[in-house]
Amino acid sequence: MRSRGPAATEPRRPLAARLSPERLRLIVITDPGLATPKTVEAVAEQALEAGAPSIQLRDKHQAVGELLPLARRLRDLTRRFDALFFVNDRLDLALAVGADGVHLGPTDLPVSAVRSVVPDDFLIGFSADDPDAAKAAVAEGADYLGCGTVWPTGSKRDAGQVIGIDRLRRVVAAVEAPVVAIGGITPERASLLPPTGTAGAAVIGAVMSAQNPAEAVSILLALLDSERTHNDP
Amino acid sequence: MRSRGPAATEPRRPLAARLSPERLRLIVITDPGLATPKTVEAVAEQALEAGAPSIQLRDKHQAVGELLPLARRLRDLTRRFDALFFVNDRLDLALAVGADGVHLGPTDLPVSAVRSVVPDDFLIGFSADDPDAAKAAVAEGADYLGCGTVWPTGSKRDAGQVIGIDRLRRVVAAVEAPVVAIGGITPERASLLPPTGTAGAAVIGAVMSAQNPAEAVSILLALLDSERTHNDP
Repeated sequence: MRSRGPAATEPRRPLAARLSPERLRLIVITDPGLATPKTVEAVAEQALEAGAPSIQLRDKHQAVGELLPLARRLRDLTRRFDALFFVNDRLDLALAVGADGVHLGPTDLPVSAVRSVVPDDFLIGFSADDPDAAKAAVAEGADYLGCGTVWPTGSKRDAGQVIGIDRLRRVVAAVEAPVVAIGGITPERASLLPPTGTAGAAVIGAVMSAQNPAEAVSILLALLDSERTHNDP
Repeated sequence: MRSRGPAATEPRRPLAARLSPERLRLIVITDPGLATPKTVEAVAEQALEAGAPSIQLRDKHQAVGELLPLARRLRDLTRRFDALFFVNDRLDLALAVGADGVHLGPTDLPVSAVRSVVPDDFLIGFSADDPDAAKAAVAEGADYLGCGTVWPTGSKRDAGQVIGIDRLRRVVAAVEAPVVAIGGITPERASLLPPTGTAGAAVIGAVMSAQNPAEAVSILLALLDSERTHNDP
């Protein structure tokens, strides 16, 4: 296999230099259906104005060529607000628009396969719902983990089993990489997250279908910003 | 936008050095449904043994992570037979397995977007059914064109309109890049292709659903190997 990335044995830059956990305090994941009647772009812009540090483009239905214009606009927007921009699943789209990283799930390309073909500073997130999967993903080169479904949710029809906050805590304890909670995050539940040692939360419906996305982001950020128990495994 | 490929102004290697048109004489495109009860891998191996110079992995249904093992096996097989290996649509999968190139259609990432993020020697094919689309794709960096649907076909449910052999001829005349005919290629029709100046044919059903794929490839290669009218626009 032609490898175009760094060999696995080359040292990568220290995590902190690549990815401050602060930038994962809130990842706003897009969903065109939930955003309706607003556009994904309009909601993302309001979220960024309110301080969202990361946006993830997720669309399991549209062809990648049809997603490209939106991906480019979100890349421009996130750059303007100095936010991170991730693309779910489609590494090719992420590379094509110069995204900061890709978020991978169990049916996407494995972390090791992606790590071997992307630049060293390209970020890889991986969805892991148990400590072993989390450790394996980090060993393969994941920079952060999405962990859930923490609470029941209606946003992701393909969401896996609900794992609860105790399992989330165990995943956080298992790895040094930042862990972002996902699944059913409401303001009430967001306030439970800082003591778990998570870096933050990833939300779909809480922002996409909010009457006032900027207000939703402000509230979530405030609740996620409480003093955290640091992840000290 | 971070560009990880060569700048558009850097000269690329001459076409002939990258891609001999002989290697496009026959592109065997995979289809798990049509291959049944055989596996795609078994059919591909028989095709390669019979001399098929190129294989393209195409699967619009499976998740990319689930396709990865097959893609790796096809990459190994094609390397063993010194054949080219292309992946349809999924540039990320193509890069992950070290494929020689990607084949793009109108709803995939545009050629220019892919060209800007891949190595200089990575091949890009594009589906174009008229002279203007063909010229535009070559200007953006396509190395070869798939042109069709030349004849009615049942293999691709998403195949576009039937263009006929006169339009194929006009596309061939419009560009210097090699043009591969696709759509409804049978042995009878294959014999009509060499005088059009096409580099070859891309087939799905003619090999995937053949009782004897090796025999089907041998017959097609013989018919496509007749003396060609060279493309001299």
